[in-house]
Amino acid sequence: MRIILLLSSCLLISTGILNAQNKSIAESLGYPANAKLLILHADDLGVAHSENRASMSALDKNAVSSASIMVPCPWFPEIAAYASGNPGKDLGVHLTITSEWKHYKWGPVTSRDSVSSLTNKDGYFYSSVDSVATLGSAAEVEIELRNQVKKAFRSGVDVTHLDVHMGAAASTSEFVKAYLKVGREFHLPVLMDKRIHAIEDPGIRSLLDDRTIVLDKLYMEEPEDYKKGPKEFYTQVIRNMEPGLNCLLVHLAHDDEEMQGVTKEHPDYGATWRQADFDFVTSKECADLLKENNIKLVTWRELRDKIVRAE
Amino acid sequence: MRIILLLSSCLLISTGILNAQNKSIAESLGYPANAKLLILHADDLGVAHSENRASMSALDKNAVSSASIMVPCPWFPEIAAYASGNPGKDLGVHLTITSEWKHYKWGPVTSRDSVSSLTNKDGYFYSSVDSVATLGSAAEVEIELRNQVKKAFRSGVDVTHLDVHMGAAASTSEFVKAYLKVGREFHLPVLMDKRIHAIEDPGIRSLLDDRTIVLDKLYMEEPEDYKKGPKEFYTQVIRNMEPGLNCLLVHLAHDDEEMQGVTKEHPDYGATWRQADFDFVTSKECADLLKENNIKLVTWRELRDKIVRAE
Repeated sequence: MRIILLLSSCLLISTGILNAQNKSIAESLGYPANAKLLILHADDLGVAHSENRASMSALDKNAVSSASIMVPCPWFPEIAAYASGNPGKDLGVHLTITSEWKHYKWGPVTSRDSVSSLTNKDGYFYSSVDSVATLGSAAEVEIELRNQVKKAFRSGVDVTHLDVHMGAAASTSEFVKAYLKVGREFHLPVLMDKRIHAIEDPGIRSLLDDRTIVLDKLYMEEPEDYKKGPKEFYTQVIRNMEPGLNCLLVHLAHDDEEMQGVTKEHPDYGATWRQADFDFVTSKECADLLKENNIKLVTWRELRDKIVRAE
Repeated sequence: MRIILLLSSCLLISTGILNAQNKSIAESLGYPANAKLLILHADDLGVAHSENRASMSALDKNAVSSASIMVPCPWFPEIAAYASGNPGKDLGVHLTITSEWKHYKWGPVTSRDSVSSLTNKDGYFYSSVDSVATLGSAAEVEIELRNQVKKAFRSGVDVTHLDVHMGAAASTSEFVKAYLKVGREFHLPVLMDKRIHAIEDPGIRSLLDDRTIVLDKLYMEEPEDYKKGPKEFYTQVIRNMEPGLNCLLVHLAHDDEEMQGVTKEHPDYGATWRQADFDFVTSKECADLLKENNIKLVTWRELRDKIVRAE
């Protein structure tokens, strides 16, 4: 079965999930039950120096509240060093089992013989989600996801959460189980929205409990939004945000030679796109909009420590 | 035994090596016996987009006659695509068993379990030549070198020669044997200078024959040369070049954010250094100097096809 739970535009209505103590998530974090909470989240850290520079700058300015890291990528050590030097920053693992760009590639952190269903003849991850969903063994996905999390911890990242690059590690029900299982092992919240409850697979249901964090709404700019104008898209998202736990995923980089090279022949989520995201989230306009709409930026660390790992 | 044959400053005097037909190398390539031949060679292709852009530009301008590629590096696919699209360019494999930069890393092309002596706990090559010379198994070095050459051919590179990044794959006599053996297997010339003949190891001697190409002089800018001024160094090298087969190794990249990030805290062979190399080799001054001193640029492909693979 081919499903992508986590990275499509979000149509679900907030219902106010309750946690173990029958408090809403907002109350568990110390906010009124009807607060509008937002994890403003940068994806793809580690993929390139340009992405790292822009994302570290946005984290330093508190323009985003959280971010996640692609552990198999060449520039991971730069972000691991940043994480060690900035232990207060909210950094998770952006679990990665694809290598999607044309001229710039990476492969698994696990020795390839142990996860051979996840790589092509050159030892790289497949470019597309379709390929890994079709050819990848769920057992090997689980090994690779676990090793990415282990490597992040070992490298000095106090991992606050897990999420999935391109939705690949949640693209089949078996992969979803691996994703949830690895989150449980490390007592980490994993990004998902409420569609998870619509899945009847007993294996998946058995991995959900009253400490499971489920977003009310997940937002991410899609190509059609970008065409209409990124600023318009983000402005509408913020103005129309409802009470509950919201997450907005952004992709931050500079429109420079490196990022143009990485994203060659792929304008969607390309260098100009990422520069526009950076410009928006670091703008006074964005800060003012969040304030005017009474939106509280929260972190996965709060969710991890006050709910998932609550005594 | 710890030896580095190939990448120190070159003090040896030209003697005019003879090949199988008792012709000098120059005569085999169609030049007078006393010609000054020069392989003007860019190292480190594939390491970064900045390095690739500068090196492809220099190759396109015929400012360098040859170059070699680091197959394990993230940007290798960009150079493989360039090689496929430009089959006349002279491209070899810059055999790589170190990953020396602070925040940007790579590991073997071989599945790591098969070459575990070559990697650290994070699955990357060691940073230093000392580490791999001390800890690396020669049998595993041979496996990895062979797989790098195979991957280059499979990716569309008509490999013309082999050489060694940082001298690492020639840093012990056992590694030198692996290097020479892999060159033989693919009928490729391998970069070495005449100090090879001073080594008494019978295993190494058995891998040399009358088709073995040995440089008369190998030049590479060292930190002390750079301090005095790169232009002065290169000008002196060209003015003082003697008849025989010479090779000048350069490192081309742009002084941009990416290359500054790659070479962070390492000014030697850093971004400014590589930009200076690019500026010099693509200058009219360099072209004029080569012409005035009657220096003929030659390629490893000529040496491969007219000597190593001669009928």
